[in-house]
Amino acid sequence: MQVSTVVTRQRATPAPTLPLPLKPGALTLALALALAAGGAHAARANAASEARSAPAPAPAAKASLGDVIKASKPGDWRPLDPNNTLYLELPGGRVVIELAPDFAPNNIANIKTLVQERYYDGLAVLRSQDNFVAQWGDPDEKNPKPLKSAKAKVAGEFTVPMANDKHFVRLPDRDGYAPLVGHSNGFPVGRDPKMRSTWLAHCYGMVGVGRDNDSDSGNGAELYAVTGHAPRQLDRNITVVGRVVAGMPLLSALPRGAAPMGYYDKPELRVPIKSVRLAAELPEAERSHLEVMRSDAPTYQAAVEAQRNRGGPWSKYAAGHIELCNAPIPVREQADK
Amino acid sequence: MQVSTVVTRQRATPAPTLPLPLKPGALTLALALALAAGGAHAARANAASEARSAPAPAPAAKASLGDVIKASKPGDWRPLDPNNTLYLELPGGRVVIELAPDFAPNNIANIKTLVQERYYDGLAVLRSQDNFVAQWGDPDEKNPKPLKSAKAKVAGEFTVPMANDKHFVRLPDRDGYAPLVGHSNGFPVGRDPKMRSTWLAHCYGMVGVGRDNDSDSGNGAELYAVTGHAPRQLDRNITVVGRVVAGMPLLSALPRGAAPMGYYDKPELRVPIKSVRLAAELPEAERSHLEVMRSDAPTYQAAVEAQRNRGGPWSKYAAGHIELCNAPIPVREQADK
Repeated sequence: MQVSTVVTRQRATPAPTLPLPLKPGALTLALALALAAGGAHAARANAASEARSAPAPAPAAKASLGDVIKASKPGDWRPLDPNNTLYLELPGGRVVIELAPDFAPNNIANIKTLVQERYYDGLAVLRSQDNFVAQWGDPDEKNPKPLKSAKAKVAGEFTVPMANDKHFVRLPDRDGYAPLVGHSNGFPVGRDPKMRSTWLAHCYGMVGVGRDNDSDSGNGAELYAVTGHAPRQLDRNITVVGRVVAGMPLLSALPRGAAPMGYYDKPELRVPIKSVRLAAELPEAERSHLEVMRSDAPTYQAAVEAQRNRGGPWSKYAAGHIELCNAPIPVREQADK
Repeated sequence: MQVSTVVTRQRATPAPTLPLPLKPGALTLALALALAAGGAHAARANAASEARSAPAPAPAAKASLGDVIKASKPGDWRPLDPNNTLYLELPGGRVVIELAPDFAPNNIANIKTLVQERYYDGLAVLRSQDNFVAQWGDPDEKNPKPLKSAKAKVAGEFTVPMANDKHFVRLPDRDGYAPLVGHSNGFPVGRDPKMRSTWLAHCYGMVGVGRDNDSDSGNGAELYAVTGHAPRQLDRNITVVGRVVAGMPLLSALPRGAAPMGYYDKPELRVPIKSVRLAAELPEAERSHLEVMRSDAPTYQAAVEAQRNRGGPWSKYAAGHIELCNAPIPVREQADK
């Protein structure tokens, strides 16, 4: 299945009929993601409106997310850490996953062991359930692949102490699932000040550790990515380890499985995993060079505000609110690569 | 692209390795949808837990959504109204859309005119933007298909008077985008008692009318369905006319378009529309026979509660909350058909 993930870097939501300075090869899916949830509209022709929004009538001259990204400085962005970036290589291309070790140090350590020992290579995406998750792991339950030196059981890190997280920036908007929400290093998080706990929220593109009933029954051998509306009911119930920052359609646009829970009913429908590698394992030339907007920079506040109260001639009603999972942090290709 | 949409009717989230009484041909995607958001978990083996949850230890013997559906009575369900049901026929199968004329009477009247005059037949799905929408309409901007007797401009029905909606059942859970939320005849809605207004919310699967900048620039010739995390910022900005109740993967699993906003960059990637028909136009034998859980029945309250506070041995933390778009109304095949 061919999935094209080319998006333009400079423009937010340009009209599809305009000639565009497309940058071929750009894989910045999370930017598309951010723009989808943030800047894009549902009507076809309205896209032109954002391009025309620069000379907007005062006092409603609100910056769009595209404007904010365009006006950002290099220091508003950070590169991915190659020691905390996974490449899930599928036949259709590369899925880039940023890990969040502050939130799941032990599970991530086990996943890194599995990667180093090539556990995932040759396994498959087993499940694609509409509006829920895509999941990958070992298809052979009767004769499972050995875990080698990785642990078979890792205690769930469903929440971690707030002290683990030095980068929390609160979103003032109300949330039904957590006392406080915000972002930490670009990841959507919930926190409960009374319990002094924090956790990664199940937004679109977040990656978690499948488990059985016991809290310690997960080990990272089976992972899933959220491909639908945020299943926030899973928050604090399962270990979340990171988020997909590029290549999301390679998982979200997979055919849905016909068996219960979206499992593929025929082995040939499974999507084989060519390999999973830590970015640091690859030579520089083979890495994806992405950068993430710093969620502790003022530009991020402007990016959120541009989505909370949208300007431009298309919007008739400003929500005055943004929900945690509707404010994903922009990702783009590094400018100098 | 083959998309399989067979789901089982009786079971909630059975283990994929169990022998299952699958009912071939069942198209109840929205049930899968409801179960995805509601009953299913992200781990593979955990599915068995729900099956084992019957003799749960008191006092935590909570019903799962599957239990609620199983215990429901025929009167808890209503059939679709053939005069307000659209069949969008794609090469991969049928997408069933339930219209909500209480919320958009004029736009829906225009859409019905377009259907009756076969406007959509031969047009195409033009756009699939990851985590946002799939959109269909006329690919030929230079030489557009005539609208015949349909109106070219229909005033936006972004909100309607609360008096239009006789079936509202409030969800007590907090919401950031609307003063009150709930369901009306199975549709997710927001309402503002101060403004005496109500509107359909942009949850997964909802269908809306694409428009240009002017509020009356939509006419139903271009429609979209939400295929990602609920873009609630569109609420009160655009006319929503209904929701997809079956066949959602035929839209959600489409390859994403490579052009900006997810438009297909090559004409051959567009998905041709074979036809759009009102169910009432087809002979009985050719109709989809689906029923929707009545959102004004006590069983619906139980269904919501089963998702707000989940039981069973898998759940470690009960959210005590359900977000509007995480509580889709179950849909299933009619028992007697």
